Amino acid sequence: MTKINKATWIWFPGDFEIWLGNRLNNRRTERGAMFPPFWKQDSHWVTVEFSKTIVLDEPETVCIAVEGDFNWMLDGKLQFGMPNEFTIPAGEHKLNIKVHNPTTPPALYIEGKTVYTDSSWLITYEDKIWIDENGVAHGSGIYVPAACWNFYSIDERPSNYRLLRKEHMPVSSEDGLYDFGRETFGYLKFCEVNGEGVFHVYYGESREEALDKEFCETLDKIVVKLGDKEVCTCHSKAFRYVYVETEGNLTYNTVAMDYEYAPQNLLKSGTFRCNDDELNRIWEIGAYTMDLTTREFFVDGIKRDRWIWSGDAIQSYLMNYYLRFDNECVKRTIRQLRGKDPVTAHINTIMDYTFYWFKSIYDYYLYTGDVEFVRELYPRMKTMMDYVLGRTNSDGMAEGKSDDWIFVDWVDFPMHKRGVLCFEQILFCKSLETMQFCASMLREHPLEFPPQGSIPTEIYETDALNYQSLFESLKAKLKPIFWNEEKGAFMHSIEDGVLNPHITKFPNMFAMLYDFLDEIDKKRVMHTVMLNPEIDPITTPYMRFYELEALCMMGLYAEVMNEMKAYWGGMLHEGATSFWEKYVPHENGAQHLSMYGRPYGKSLCHAWGASPVYLLGKYYLGVQPTSPGYATFTVTPALGGLEWIEGDVPTPHGLVHIYMDNYKVKIKAAGGKGTLLLPSGEYPIIPGKELVVNFRIKQG
Amino acid sequence: MTKINKATWIWFPGDFEIWLGNRLNNRRTERGAMFPPFWKQDSHWVTVEFSKTIVLDEPETVCIAVEGDFNWMLDGKLQFGMPNEFTIPAGEHKLNIKVHNPTTPPALYIEGKTVYTDSSWLITYEDKIWIDENGVAHGSGIYVPAACWNFYSIDERPSNYRLLRKEHMPVSSEDGLYDFGRETFGYLKFCEVNGEGVFHVYYGESREEALDKEFCETLDKIVVKLGDKEVCTCHSKAFRYVYVETEGNLTYNTVAMDYEYAPQNLLKSGTFRCNDDELNRIWEIGAYTMDLTTREFFVDGIKRDRWIWSGDAIQSYLMNYYLRFDNECVKRTIRQLRGKDPVTAHINTIMDYTFYWFKSIYDYYLYTGDVEFVRELYPRMKTMMDYVLGRTNSDGMAEGKSDDWIFVDWVDFPMHKRGVLCFEQILFCKSLETMQFCASMLREHPLEFPPQGSIPTEIYETDALNYQSLFESLKAKLKPIFWNEEKGAFMHSIEDGVLNPHITKFPNMFAMLYDFLDEIDKKRVMHTVMLNPEIDPITTPYMRFYELEALCMMGLYAEVMNEMKAYWGGMLHEGATSFWEKYVPHENGAQHLSMYGRPYGKSLCHAWGASPVYLLGKYYLGVQPTSPGYATFTVTPALGGLEWIEGDVPTPHGLVHIYMDNYKVKIKAAGGKGTLLLPSGEYPIIPGKELVVNFRIKQG
Repeated sequence: MTKINKATWIWFPGDFEIWLGNRLNNRRTERGAMFPPFWKQDSHWVTVEFSKTIVLDEPETVCIAVEGDFNWMLDGKLQFGMPNEFTIPAGEHKLNIKVHNPTTPPALYIEGKTVYTDSSWLITYEDKIWIDENGVAHGSGIYVPAACWNFYSIDERPSNYRLLRKEHMPVSSEDGLYDFGRETFGYLKFCEVNGEGVFHVYYGESREEALDKEFCETLDKIVVKLGDKEVCTCHSKAFRYVYVETEGNLTYNTVAMDYEYAPQNLLKSGTFRCNDDELNRIWEIGAYTMDLTTREFFVDGIKRDRWIWSGDAIQSYLMNYYLRFDNECVKRTIRQLRGKDPVTAHINTIMDYTFYWFKSIYDYYLYTGDVEFVRELYPRMKTMMDYVLGRTNSDGMAEGKSDDWIFVDWVDFPMHKRGVLCFEQILFCKSLETMQFCASMLREHPLEFPPQGSIPTEIYETDALNYQSLFESLKAKLKPIFWNEEKGAFMHSIEDGVLNPHITKFPNMFAMLYDFLDEIDKKRVMHTVMLNPEIDPITTPYMRFYELEALCMMGLYAEVMNEMKAYWGGMLHEGATSFWEKYVPHENGAQHLSMYGRPYGKSLCHAWGASPVYLLGKYYLGVQPTSPGYATFTVTPALGGLEWIEGDVPTPHGLVHIYMDNYKVKIKAAGGKGTLLLPSGEYPIIPGKELVVNFRIKQG
Repeated sequence: MTKINKATWIWFPGDFEIWLGNRLNNRRTERGAMFPPFWKQDSHWVTVEFSKTIVLDEPETVCIAVEGDFNWMLDGKLQFGMPNEFTIPAGEHKLNIKVHNPTTPPALYIEGKTVYTDSSWLITYEDKIWIDENGVAHGSGIYVPAACWNFYSIDERPSNYRLLRKEHMPVSSEDGLYDFGRETFGYLKFCEVNGEGVFHVYYGESREEALDKEFCETLDKIVVKLGDKEVCTCHSKAFRYVYVETEGNLTYNTVAMDYEYAPQNLLKSGTFRCNDDELNRIWEIGAYTMDLTTREFFVDGIKRDRWIWSGDAIQSYLMNYYLRFDNECVKRTIRQLRGKDPVTAHINTIMDYTFYWFKSIYDYYLYTGDVEFVRELYPRMKTMMDYVLGRTNSDGMAEGKSDDWIFVDWVDFPMHKRGVLCFEQILFCKSLETMQFCASMLREHPLEFPPQGSIPTEIYETDALNYQSLFESLKAKLKPIFWNEEKGAFMHSIEDGVLNPHITKFPNMFAMLYDFLDEIDKKRVMHTVMLNPEIDPITTPYMRFYELEALCMMGLYAEVMNEMKAYWGGMLHEGATSFWEKYVPHENGAQHLSMYGRPYGKSLCHAWGASPVYLLGKYYLGVQPTSPGYATFTVTPALGGLEWIEGDVPTPHGLVHIYMDNYKVKIKAAGGKGTLLLPSGEYPIIPGKELVVNFRIKQG
């Protein structure tokens, strides 16, 4: 059948993500034991109603596919059964379809010549329309545009969604130990099996881990029955090495694996090359780390937790904006993290992670210009913020309660997390600013035909004023409370009314990044904190992300370049084929593998390890949106000591290609209003036309 | 295997009901089209954690069964896989089991010599416990006692729960029309089928309906393949008659049905007999109507809607307290109606139905004394009341908004439902009183070992004061605003600040029932409203329930007896084999069948039609609890013009048996502190001993 229109499967916004997220989050195992998350998991709406008003010049027969039981109502009249085809007469008609599905999200696909499902359909989980004794309809529901993704044919049912697979072979083997050459992810297979018994499989991100049957983090026990010729693991695992032992009368010829991955469009992806091979390798391993952790959602790491964590995800989003620009995955992850009302805990139970969630919506809007996603999310942003505001202390500060996890970072030095942390207030403040920004933005972007139950413009107006006042009030308190003028830094916290004078990089660098310091104080903080060797160093790539970004913002390109080479290059020297959860340069050998008190507890493929991808795109290729969706953007390229750099940055308009060496800059952008910023001046970038600027003086 | 302990399947409180309720509510059809409810439907928690601390003198092997994927943690250490047996060493141990099940409620069954699942286990859907990098546990969850019902063996999985079935045969047949003799419910079967084709089945609660292929409310189309010998409908239907047509080359020998029912304990049931055969028949048909509508939950009617409606259910509960005392069904129905947070609409979208839901908890507690159920529900009572309070107008009154359905009753006379209805305020006021009552009661019944996350006593204290103040404030407004002293009645409503002087029985009779009038005004209202022929009559058994109860409260036993015989006797004379949704005595023939503008729209088996069961038990046998769970109770028997009455009323202690004629009363109660109240005095009822009081003067 030839595709005659853009018919697509539709469902209630967020339901697909809630369902898929539960599948993902509950798939983690630890040494053969299932390991689900320790926070509330939601469900999709089990019954929804789809509706659309259509006008037909002539009768039209549509085909109908549904995930769930359903009814079909034409102009308020129920039709018999669950038809897979229906002829709609000419004229104006109202279609209402209720779908019930307790197992997977209720979803609808209709395909006809002019009538077909897409995001112009409305949907509600609570139609609240009732018919009185005289047959008159009353009540009102809250209708929103239906959600869709890329399920464009009747057979591509959303509940059948799976990542892709591709067979890979080990590069070497020795006494039951198989090496797949680099960090990978998927399903192990045994080929040409004979006999019966049990395969005991021990996975290792390192050789040490795979060979350590007692302590490796993941393992499998596969029972083989007589006659099984090829056996495959049910669950995917992360590994580079596998060690296999057989029990019983069992032989096999080879071991292979099905690599599992999310497809990415390489033609629309970010790239980076330069004259330094080590840096190129850092970028490539960063990109591979991102590809491994970009799955149904952005996950933290692929060995464990394989969960969706907000603080990890916001970094994945930002890296993604400079790598694959897979914004559907950003949306899925943001939706999944939020789940449903009521809010009964912080996102992932972590206060900071709630705040990153708010910030990530601001970032998403800036990089994509997607108003509708913000509109979809806004009611849940509000209830999330209500939760935060409902738990502030008498000073209006976000103080941890007994059931809040205050994470900040994994640190090796003593750092209390009691009381009111300056770090958390800065994130809270940014969240309030985001709320104010989104409310104002939505007020300025009203829908032409708001569906019944939409938020009226006045509410956005009121909200914007309210959040602005909360934001300004909190911002005004930050310096009086936490700033030590003598030390030129934000102090750590207030505990029982007493200032804890511990200085860490965390609040100070976020105050810089979020622009809560003036330029003079930013420069002071660079000196007093960021570059001060007496301040405890950051040892996770997680917080190095922000640390190095702060340095880049202050123009320390060469210093950051050196740091990247030292730190990420250090991991490469240790044999990393993907970047790690944590890296402490002075550690040795198997010390690098341990964490959480377990010898192989550390994840060797962790999304937050990939930040060079972000830093190189944003601060060296130097491309940054200055208005939503790259309507305008700047390019501020920097060599940071390299001889030449070249690469692409994805935007909604297509790629921006940049080349720079000591003598020139060449830029070509597919669209948007770009400006090249150089010390010598500003140069407009005409879409589709290469801009070349030659330097009079050699740049450094 | 011999049962060695009281092991039972356990799950999160309310989850079983939410899951089962969705199955039930989405099963309604209308002329072959699925007809789901028009309000939000919730889901069970997909991942929960069960826990218990145990102490063993010796190692113990337990068997484990789980609905869902699970892990097994002993003293904080995860064990391999999903074991179906585990040996726990001697000593004190902590068991934690996480279960994930997206399809049916996660449920656990453990059976060992001393370790087994029951309601002493704790459960949480959000354990919020995390382990830091040093392996130290942090955080806290909200734990509640696990729920269970009567699934006492490993094979009785909660998700397999079904009602019972029994084959019934038609009593007569003629030209494809089969009569099953009385209203019934179940699955139609065709036996000894030959050939292939389609059975077209038209169901009728009346002969007229079954024969009217165009307008009967329910029908089936059963496709028969060659070789099918016995075919059965997939879905249950309500009917007395079925009319069958065959299409294609199809023959069959007989039609039968599988009657579907909820088992009831007749030995612990209420009974009623008297010298009047018609009244006995009214009681029996009432009891049968109740049995037909007492299913997985108390439903409104069995033809349609087959949904769980709060206003209908509260009457079923009250009748049930005088009939089967099936209090598990009461709890299931109350839980199902409430669903989960957040509250986004009134229960069933109807404001009055929210208020009945509150009242039903008060009633349940009074009849059963079950503190733990109130404790379980209290947090959701609060959020439900928050919803109500969040929508009151500036006078603190419950005024209908555009998405609230103000039901009151189906009425034949003009009655506006705009503005602030006195009827709704009286129900609202009773709800606030219930909140205050429950908060005070829970404050006085603290748990000895409250699980982590329990509501502290101080909160109940504060709540009780808060609800008391709201209750008193609203109650104090009722008379100044709605009462017309000249007319001696509550007026209907305030619309746009103007009193609508329409007088209906609704607010007046509820003010009497809920004791919001003093004795003098109650007597006035009897005269000015309840017995005033100028006031529009009530035409539904739904509101006749309250009307006749109000008359009984005022001692009008003979008048109510006459009314019962006239009204319910009237339905019997029309051939009713179960009681109807609505009955208008002056209508004729097929007029009795129509409603909602449809010729067979009326339900002929509607729970609210069975109120004589309640009235006869409570006001003629005269048994009423005076403290929770019949710790104390009174018996005030009344003949109401009959020669003798005899019967049983169920209580948590067992039956109370009453006999009365004009010369004596005989009472025997299994337990509780009962008091017989007669005009001649008060007589204590000693449990297990028959009390006989002979009258000096013949009673009437």
